[in-house]
Amino acid sequence: MNERIMNPEKDLALIKKGALELIGQDELLEKLNAYYRTGKPLTIKLGLDPSAPDIHLGHTVVLRKIRQFQTLGHKALLIIGDFTGRIGDPTGKNKLRKQLTEKEVLENADTYKKQLLKILDPEKTTICFNSEWLDNISLKDMIEFMSKQSLLRMLERDSFKKRMESQEAIFLHELLYPMLQGLDSLETEADVEIGGMDQKFNILMGRDMQAKEGMDKQAALFMPIIEGLDGQMKMSKSLGNYVGIDEAPEVMFEKIMTIPDDLIEKYFLLLTDLTTVEIQDLVDGMENGDLHPKAVKMKLAETIVGQYHPLEDALKAKERFVRVMSQGQVPKELPNLTVDPNASILEVMLKAGFSTSKSEARRLVQQKGVKINGKIVESIDLDEFHKGDILQVGKKKFVELSS
Amino acid sequence: MNERIMNPEKDLALIKKGALELIGQDELLEKLNAYYRTGKPLTIKLGLDPSAPDIHLGHTVVLRKIRQFQTLGHKALLIIGDFTGRIGDPTGKNKLRKQLTEKEVLENADTYKKQLLKILDPEKTTICFNSEWLDNISLKDMIEFMSKQSLLRMLERDSFKKRMESQEAIFLHELLYPMLQGLDSLETEADVEIGGMDQKFNILMGRDMQAKEGMDKQAALFMPIIEGLDGQMKMSKSLGNYVGIDEAPEVMFEKIMTIPDDLIEKYFLLLTDLTTVEIQDLVDGMENGDLHPKAVKMKLAETIVGQYHPLEDALKAKERFVRVMSQGQVPKELPNLTVDPNASILEVMLKAGFSTSKSEARRLVQQKGVKINGKIVESIDLDEFHKGDILQVGKKKFVELSS
Repeated sequence: MNERIMNPEKDLALIKKGALELIGQDELLEKLNAYYRTGKPLTIKLGLDPSAPDIHLGHTVVLRKIRQFQTLGHKALLIIGDFTGRIGDPTGKNKLRKQLTEKEVLENADTYKKQLLKILDPEKTTICFNSEWLDNISLKDMIEFMSKQSLLRMLERDSFKKRMESQEAIFLHELLYPMLQGLDSLETEADVEIGGMDQKFNILMGRDMQAKEGMDKQAALFMPIIEGLDGQMKMSKSLGNYVGIDEAPEVMFEKIMTIPDDLIEKYFLLLTDLTTVEIQDLVDGMENGDLHPKAVKMKLAETIVGQYHPLEDALKAKERFVRVMSQGQVPKELPNLTVDPNASILEVMLKAGFSTSKSEARRLVQQKGVKINGKIVESIDLDEFHKGDILQVGKKKFVELSS
Repeated sequence: MNERIMNPEKDLALIKKGALELIGQDELLEKLNAYYRTGKPLTIKLGLDPSAPDIHLGHTVVLRKIRQFQTLGHKALLIIGDFTGRIGDPTGKNKLRKQLTEKEVLENADTYKKQLLKILDPEKTTICFNSEWLDNISLKDMIEFMSKQSLLRMLERDSFKKRMESQEAIFLHELLYPMLQGLDSLETEADVEIGGMDQKFNILMGRDMQAKEGMDKQAALFMPIIEGLDGQMKMSKSLGNYVGIDEAPEVMFEKIMTIPDDLIEKYFLLLTDLTTVEIQDLVDGMENGDLHPKAVKMKLAETIVGQYHPLEDALKAKERFVRVMSQGQVPKELPNLTVDPNASILEVMLKAGFSTSKSEARRLVQQKGVKINGKIVESIDLDEFHKGDILQVGKKKFVELSS
């Protein structure tokens, strides 16, 4: 039990923040109450694909939600689906999914672990393989479970429905996969399962199977799916439109800088700790021209990279980005200015020609009319600049710094 | 290898006799050829329901066909489906099928064995349980097999099709049952599987699964299904319209006597060793009035009972039937005549008033105009009669004997 004030209702509000849908809210509230009564933390389940050694920002939407549960005292259970991973996709339909050896699965798991613990609290995180229990389920047991599931109900699943309608082949083993995921919930007595809406059928299957075996049903919490760098498709390894959290700072930085402007807000919302108020300010700033989208995007990139790497490395990545990517393609309205890295903000403003005197510069800063990378400069004592920082005065004066 | 002349084509003709359909004829001929080349007998598979301790005449249609294979040198493999029997019918939809304990299955198997060996050659018969291999199939293996089967193809099965169309529930485990039967063929490397047309889908599944695992496909031989005593429904335990081969002679006899006349021919064809010529004679005799259907039916009952009990007991059953069932309801055209059991045929004919002299009686016999129970009396030396025998002279003179 942590030392927080017991307030299940408040916990529930935090849990629902940013979520698209919560199924089983009353049951979850009951479980949260029980937690305060008994001290037994809830098990928050997340299923992981064993073929993905590179966790990307798309995954972090749910991982960050799990971290919130951990701050409330609960424990994360990350289940690597190695059982089906070792089976692969025998239909050969999904060309991007290959059959994994046991060794590959274990290697991937290590990679996973390293990455997951960048986001989650190691003290409250268990990582396991579903082959631990699925390997021991006999055909006889499986038949018993299958006998409780109706085919018609199974075919209500979107992907099956479409294929039935178009007379496209469904292979029998595919009908088992939602049940295998359900068995994971059954076996681990999960209290909450988190996923994207694309997992809705499978997560609800877990609820159904738990109920049929006389167990309390897990709550189902659905988080938004985040678009990849193209701004169109769901972020995914197979589409190549992803940012892996284990990628080098400069790679992450560069990738994030390629997103379309209209994704900036959603990325801030789901991928950073900025409050909704702070995010709204940035959005308003872009809309009324106070902030240049490129500056806001650089703030986004710096913030996200800084979550997975030391802040210093994030800043270096930004410098490199400016040097390699921006040079030669600096837009007319964004001139380049070479400054002494230890110059004061007032000196830089003078050099940029944004003020005619240090006192005018001081006044502009005090009126909160000066920004670095979209963030208001709060003090005239600022004397640290980085290559690629964007200095802005008023709505229209921008300059990119290089040292 | 038996000492028969090698003639696979002739073997094939015998195999097809009385069968409704043979799928894989070319492959079977190839297998028969291989048998003569290598001496390795074919494995003739039959699946048995573990819940049926009482084999009835309906089952003997296929069992008698297997015996024919045995006379050709091949071996019978009878597979008791205890694996699914122990699962039972978890939907509760099939009220007549109950979950069996291991003990019950074993007891039933003993009963089966005793009955089966009344028909089959013990030297060439193996009885086994499919749990022997199905218990060892892992969920992973099963998923691999399932991944090679299309749902659309599975739903072509009649019983599924109808239920899909009427939106009636199909439970997922039901989709596995044809595959489990197919696994039996795979595991035992069956060369031929025999069954009724109701087994067509499942038996063809065995062919399909063998082919997909790179094995020679079993031939599929379909025998007619025989109607039960009501003459309408398939003979089955659950409908109560059956004759068990382990039932007492008098019970079998009585039951067979209740079949409608228009089933007599089919019963002779599928349940006795009479040749098609002999059967045609009986049918013709009934049609032109030479033979009374009751007499022919008694011959049928006597023949069938005699296959499963000593002939003496079959005759006693007939006597009892006549005494208990027929007395008091003897039709006008079938008067009763008490005779000395050791009287000669000529004396009996005289006593019955069917001839006016022994020489006339002798001539009638020699002209093959005298029958006992529908069978022509071949010799005037006949001097053994049984209670209930029906003596017939010409087309219209009948008398039932009692002693």
